[in-house]
Amino acid sequence: MANSKPEITDEVAAVANFMVERDLFAEQLGIQLEELRLGRCRASLRLAPSMLNGHGIPHGAVLFALADFAFAGACNSYGRTAVALSMDIHFVSSPRPDARLEAVAEEVRLGRRTGLYRISVTDDENTVVAELHGMAYRKKDRFI
Amino acid sequence: MANSKPEITDEVAAVANFMVERDLFAEQLGIQLEELRLGRCRASLRLAPSMLNGHGIPHGAVLFALADFAFAGACNSYGRTAVALSMDIHFVSSPRPDARLEAVAEEVRLGRRTGLYRISVTDDENTVVAELHGMAYRKKDRFI
Amino acid sequence: MANSKPEITDEVAAVANFMVERDLFAEQLGIQLEELRLGRCRASLRLAPSMLNGHGIPHGAVLFALADFAFAGACNSYGRTAVALSMDIHFVSSPRPDARLEAVAEEVRLGRRTGLYRISVTDDENTVVAELHGMAYRKKDRFI
Amino acid sequence: MANSKPEITDEVAAVANFMVERDLFAEQLGIQLEELRLGRCRASLRLAPSMLNGHGIPHGAVLFALADFAFAGACNSYGRTAVALSMDIHFVSSPRPDARLEAVAEEVRLGRRTGLYRISVTDDENTVVAELHGMAYRKKDRFI
Repeated sequence: MANSKPEITDEVAAVANFMVERDLFAEQLGIQLEELRLGRCRASLRLAPSMLNGHGIPHGAVLFALADFAFAGACNSYGRTAVALSMDIHFVSSPRPDARLEAVAEEVRLGRRTGLYRISVTDDENTVVAELHGMAYRKKDRFI
Repeated sequence: MANSKPEITDEVAAVANFMVERDLFAEQLGIQLEELRLGRCRASLRLAPSMLNGHGIPHGAVLFALADFAFAGACNSYGRTAVALSMDIHFVSSPRPDARLEAVAEEVRLGRRTGLYRISVTDDENTVVAELHGMAYRKKDRFI
Repeated sequence: MANSKPEITDEVAAVANFMVERDLFAEQLGIQLEELRLGRCRASLRLAPSMLNGHGIPHGAVLFALADFAFAGACNSYGRTAVALSMDIHFVSSPRPDARLEAVAEEVRLGRRTGLYRISVTDDENTVVAELHGMAYRKKDRFI
Repeated sequence: MANSKPEITDEVAAVANFMVERDLFAEQLGIQLEELRLGRCRASLRLAPSMLNGHGIPHGAVLFALADFAFAGACNSYGRTAVALSMDIHFVSSPRPDARLEAVAEEVRLGRRTGLYRISVTDDENTVVAELHGMAYRKKDRFI
């Protein structure tokens, strides 16, 4: 599944290219875009030893980075520049140190200037690892 | 200032060593421990081009990682294993792409099993970049 | 539906009585317990003119109070005293000024000392009004 | 202090009148406006027996209502209609059942369409009871 072709609808193809080419931090972590549609994005990440914290469990910031990438995909999917106003993350369970994680971001509300997204992170046994909400601000300019 | 000796009180010296040696993800990002006391931690990070997102502004996940490190320092400062239950981040302003950022985590409440921390991230002009709250769960075991 | 008998499983009957008899603030607002099970609670409220804010839309604090009641029911359902550590509320849409609202609180994670709950508030057309997460601290004593 | 004249600057006098006359829910709870300036609001509330929850401690929703009133004052102080997008509340300590509480809302960031506010609730011994952040959306129309 990790190497299958991402599911990307035609209307968001340019957005997907933009994200994959420009987001160097996500690339560095090995975050993969798995699915992109208007208002919805799915991304994955294989945990590595360098992503553990001092207590030997995956770093909260790594889970956040994966969730944030999916959130960015969903709220930027319309081609209008969207930036995060706030996010809250709730840690539900610690995944195995080498688990493959998947984050799904779904639109709860799309206003003219703001958007609310629900994001969940699960491991390869479909156990919920973290739940988030993200609020985005939608600028007037388009980036594609 | 970036290269000055960190301010670490004697009672938390072992915790500081633990954090600096074990947290490989923080090391990889170039996060520096600047100060550690019981219930308080300060850390810094120099932004790099690889930390920008597609829109050319610093990645929210990088700001989160810095804040999370300071939070981890403050809530683990007693030597008892503490893990994050939840965090919320509010993005206040976008720093320059090469700014040096500093995060300060301060204890709001220390209960027997949980602790609440306030974290703020500022840039080198002392402008607030992000504000967070973090809730920690305190396990019974000591890690040092 | 508002006047139908609440769905309460036997194991939580004493908890339900406790909530209904003791929570005077909820009673004053007209909050009704609709369903209580281990880890799950549903409650309703009919909006009244006195619950509107200056802008003529239902008060955020009223939506919060309803969600908080459902949260309290779910996290106290085991009979062990549970208190809120933190809650976050996201306002999704404004209900009609006289709508009947329903809140459902569901357990995401039950730890020994903490519990995480997802709460959603909907109106009588099943439109989402607000989404929340609540984190509870579970004391050792039982209240029933 | 509870009966002293509220501190209200001239430029926000019409906003203050609007809040005091129109917010029936706040009036019902006995919430008093204590101070209003551009971007800042202070409000107070005397706890009453009807505001306790089943466990005999002040209802989280009452603390939220007080904080929300101060937040509404601060973000509406410019006379432009502002509504809450999201709020997060962290419960720090339980006040005495008859304490006089005070909430202060302060502006962290004022954008063209959104604003971020920090709110803290303290009791009459100046102990922190709750800390919040609130995000407001600023409409184009003025309500005064």
